[in-house]
Amino acid sequence: MNNFDFHSPTRIIFGRGTQKEVGGYVKKYASKILLHYGGGSIKKSGLYEEITASLKAAGVDFEELDGVVPNPRVGLVREGVKICREKGIEFILAVGGGSVIDSAKAIALGVPYEGDVWDFFTGKAKPLRALRVAAVLTIPAAGSESSLSAVISDEETQMKLGCKTNLIRPVFSILNPEFCFTLPPEQASYGVCDMTAHIFERYFSNVPNTELTDGLCEAALKTIINNALKVLKNNRDYNAWAEIMFAGNLAHNGLLGMGRQEDWASHAIEHALSAVYDIAHGQGLAIVFPAWMKYVYKQNIPLFAQFAANVWGEKENDLNDKELCALKGIERTEEFFKSINLPTRLGQINVKKEDIPLMAKKVTSFGPVGFFKKLDYDNVVAIYNLAYQ
Amino acid sequence: MNNFDFHSPTRIIFGRGTQKEVGGYVKKYASKILLHYGGGSIKKSGLYEEITASLKAAGVDFEELDGVVPNPRVGLVREGVKICREKGIEFILAVGGGSVIDSAKAIALGVPYEGDVWDFFTGKAKPLRALRVAAVLTIPAAGSESSLSAVISDEETQMKLGCKTNLIRPVFSILNPEFCFTLPPEQASYGVCDMTAHIFERYFSNVPNTELTDGLCEAALKTIINNALKVLKNNRDYNAWAEIMFAGNLAHNGLLGMGRQEDWASHAIEHALSAVYDIAHGQGLAIVFPAWMKYVYKQNIPLFAQFAANVWGEKENDLNDKELCALKGIERTEEFFKSINLPTRLGQINVKKEDIPLMAKKVTSFGPVGFFKKLDYDNVVAIYNLAYQ
Repeated sequence: MNNFDFHSPTRIIFGRGTQKEVGGYVKKYASKILLHYGGGSIKKSGLYEEITASLKAAGVDFEELDGVVPNPRVGLVREGVKICREKGIEFILAVGGGSVIDSAKAIALGVPYEGDVWDFFTGKAKPLRALRVAAVLTIPAAGSESSLSAVISDEETQMKLGCKTNLIRPVFSILNPEFCFTLPPEQASYGVCDMTAHIFERYFSNVPNTELTDGLCEAALKTIINNALKVLKNNRDYNAWAEIMFAGNLAHNGLLGMGRQEDWASHAIEHALSAVYDIAHGQGLAIVFPAWMKYVYKQNIPLFAQFAANVWGEKENDLNDKELCALKGIERTEEFFKSINLPTRLGQINVKKEDIPLMAKKVTSFGPVGFFKKLDYDNVVAIYNLAYQ
Repeated sequence: MNNFDFHSPTRIIFGRGTQKEVGGYVKKYASKILLHYGGGSIKKSGLYEEITASLKAAGVDFEELDGVVPNPRVGLVREGVKICREKGIEFILAVGGGSVIDSAKAIALGVPYEGDVWDFFTGKAKPLRALRVAAVLTIPAAGSESSLSAVISDEETQMKLGCKTNLIRPVFSILNPEFCFTLPPEQASYGVCDMTAHIFERYFSNVPNTELTDGLCEAALKTIINNALKVLKNNRDYNAWAEIMFAGNLAHNGLLGMGRQEDWASHAIEHALSAVYDIAHGQGLAIVFPAWMKYVYKQNIPLFAQFAANVWGEKENDLNDKELCALKGIERTEEFFKSINLPTRLGQINVKKEDIPLMAKKVTSFGPVGFFKKLDYDNVVAIYNLAYQ
């Protein structure tokens, strides 16, 4: 086990009706805030009404900025920075999924910084301060509600980059599984895939002696898998959504990677894909991860065999071969993504083969990616190619 | 799953050599602190020297208060309160196990309170403020290094009572598994038993649909069990201690009980026992928990059967009877405590049968205890009696 430093200070307020108390939670920090959200779905569902009523009741003034899109744009972030500066706002409440929360985090970084906020994503500058952020989560997926990271896209350069700093961990997040009842089924599937991917990035590590977090990762993965099919059958299954929403949070609050060496190559490979094709992140991951697994599993066959046994119930003894068992686990993962109606090949979403070099270049523009197996340009090209087969 | 509110803001700094950085972590909060510890073991091990050197290097002044004993006394707490007031100290660094940390937490509560600190333990007053506390943990057991609770004994009235408030969660805790190399074997066993008990108190819940936390509890329990025998065989097994120390922290940071109804009757039954007999808490739990399990398992046979299957690898199908499987899990738990050299019967530690009424009265002095099965005076007497058989 590696040394580690674990700090996940976000308060998680979880369950039915919890959004109605948001005003009180915000009031502890600020009396004037930016309310940040996406399209009209929170107005249609009635959530907007509940949130604003609670803010008003608590005496919290708010400016609004809507229009966050999937793969949130730095253009809107800059607009948010401007509003906060003009109105003297020091707290941002994100109401939505990972894109909205990431956008709010980026605004929080930009306000106290003299340069352009994009500097934090290109690595040109290191953040020293940020406004406080909190979230009301409507899509269990990205784990941004308690993570230290934000991923933002620059529409002009087709770059999609992340920034990680403890400064932008939300101070609290409200998670009510009832919000998921109205999620379109494809959004549910993208979210499920995204949270399994967050665990995969941590689980596939070559650091030995990580028994506890192995077990925690396996428990979280099994919970997500068991409940994904339930919510696709019945999108009002509160208990199944509660398991998924809780597991999605745990998948990305940092705990599951402690003492391990996290990988994150598959996320980089997906980010290049969705930067060029503007597909949903969870969709891209369902294509990238099986290909990555097939390409790298030989680095640590015992771990992939353990994954097959403990997550998918495959029996190593029956097969009498660790490698066969490992491959069976990869196959089951891919089957699972198919069973929740996600394409698992680049061809199925009309990605052109001739774009592979461009995407692979983006992935490795700052050098090789990943730790489970370090991947250079050629390796990444090979993984994109595997994702067609 | 019940609604829940999870907040575990303690930063966990984990691994080899981490104690040497303590001065820097403290300095972020205070320049003058109370250094609180137990007997001479931290001087013998060299830890005292390392801590004080790091504090001095960081420019942190410190007053010292040693002498914390197992089942820490309110008398010493009052002394600590006095010192902090006289010297204008606003931060307490506990170096030791759960007793030292609990004592530090109690001092932290007492300093800004006009009345007597014991009021917070009898329930006479509710804490509104506390000094900041941090810990360097030397005994993985109580989980006090990130918990919201402190348990203190009043030597005069033989009362052992707890206080729970988020105000006393340590701001950071340093956990280096190397500190465990010099633990006497019985301390290791007490610690292991204590952390399994913290999970049992959360795991045995009648709230339905708690799949994720079921799995997390089971993973943590398996990790503790697998590694306990390793450290008893080789007390310098870093990796095994790392698993135990990490699991012991997770066992009591709150996560494993989220969405469930925690029980805590067995802890109350043990507290009365160790208030009267001054035995180690972990020792008392090894006697109380098997008895409690035998007394209550019929409340939820499926959960006890799941425990037997998922933690102990018992096969329900082989036995073809959930109740037999459930009983097998209890038997295995008791066997495990025996295997780490803990007595599991009150007779073995010379507890007198005639003291049962006195202890049962202490347990139920504020009314029935527990939620898995509510236990009144007669139930508690029955459990103490079971603990002789």
